[in-house]
Amino acid sequence: MQKLLKENDELAQDNRAFFKEKGILCVNVMGAPGSGKTTLIMALTDELKKRGLESMVLEGDLYSSLDAEAFEQKKVPAVQINTCGECHLDAAVIREGAEKLALRRGVLFIENVGNLICPAEFDLGEHVKLLASSVPEGDDKPFKYVPMFSYIDLVALTKYDLKEAVGFDRENFEKGLRALSEASLFETAIRNGKDRGRGVELIADFLIKSF
Amino acid sequence: MQKLLKENDELAQDNRAFFKEKGILCVNVMGAPGSGKTTLIMALTDELKKRGLESMVLEGDLYSSLDAEAFEQKKVPAVQINTCGECHLDAAVIREGAEKLALRRGVLFIENVGNLICPAEFDLGEHVKLLASSVPEGDDKPFKYVPMFSYIDLVALTKYDLKEAVGFDRENFEKGLRALSEASLFETAIRNGKDRGRGVELIADFLIKSF
Repeated sequence: MQKLLKENDELAQDNRAFFKEKGILCVNVMGAPGSGKTTLIMALTDELKKRGLESMVLEGDLYSSLDAEAFEQKKVPAVQINTCGECHLDAAVIREGAEKLALRRGVLFIENVGNLICPAEFDLGEHVKLLASSVPEGDDKPFKYVPMFSYIDLVALTKYDLKEAVGFDRENFEKGLRALSEASLFETAIRNGKDRGRGVELIADFLIKSF
Repeated sequence: MQKLLKENDELAQDNRAFFKEKGILCVNVMGAPGSGKTTLIMALTDELKKRGLESMVLEGDLYSSLDAEAFEQKKVPAVQINTCGECHLDAAVIREGAEKLALRRGVLFIENVGNLICPAEFDLGEHVKLLASSVPEGDDKPFKYVPMFSYIDLVALTKYDLKEAVGFDRENFEKGLRALSEASLFETAIRNGKDRGRGVELIADFLIKSF
């Protein structure tokens, strides 16, 4: 396992340099199943486009190519990576997937497998680690998924419009998060492609500053 | 890995016989982070108590003992199993945890780690595999988490009161589930310990019939 992780880290460093050289900002989007990763990436690709930046997507999933097809319909170049049951992506599959895309200057989103545990061990060569944490999952998640909440640069608190309906205690969430991380925190509530707050704009600002 | 799984399967068989001999029905409760596993188990322990059946709980979590403490407050015997970052429970930690409980006739709930992937590979020695799948996670989950949705005996569609708010398409969910499994399907909407449908009662019926 140690050897495997070391090999992965070396490949990830190589990916990071490769993306940088091509003028690509690589964003690893992680989150639990159903946390709203795909919806968030879609809204971000629209927001970035308004600002003249292209997006590309590597879609990780155990099975199915539903999500990559949805991006292609929006004319966002996307490659599906099916892990066939594996619980995370690694640097090797990312490089392989990226080479199937027509790479150009812009933002490459990696949608990781829906999992709050295993992906926190595998550097993919990203420049930004973004976690989608949905309000219905509850405000206790940072207390329970310690490695993931320690690992990330940026949290999107998704489905924020359900806050009252599910009794989400934002203060408790922040207390848990701050014990582990200085990650930036933004709220999103995206329905039918429209963010009802300003979260998506603010995350786009963050990404543009990270170039 | 093959060897590890084989060893686990043997231990699991042994656990199953051990629980049966003691008059215990063992239920492995799985689900994504925030799918409502703890809340569901709590409501089931209350419902079973009304019918004269005791419950015991093995609480799996990467870190923290929040959930076991909550059960102890309700006077339900509980042991916390911290996996220290591991993404699943296995038959060995279950046996070790169970031996710390004062075992008696009744239902032993195992709350697995919040993860829709890895736990589907590890038989724990349970008699019933129960999946909590929450409505806000979306109706596409059976299409994406194929091994888990193939593995289970029983699905609790939790937070069902949010169906309209999140646009959950139940027909699509059932289509995905039925392609993989004949698992029984019940809806729950538990708030402040009260099920607003009859899902908890029906799941309790299912468990009692499984003894």
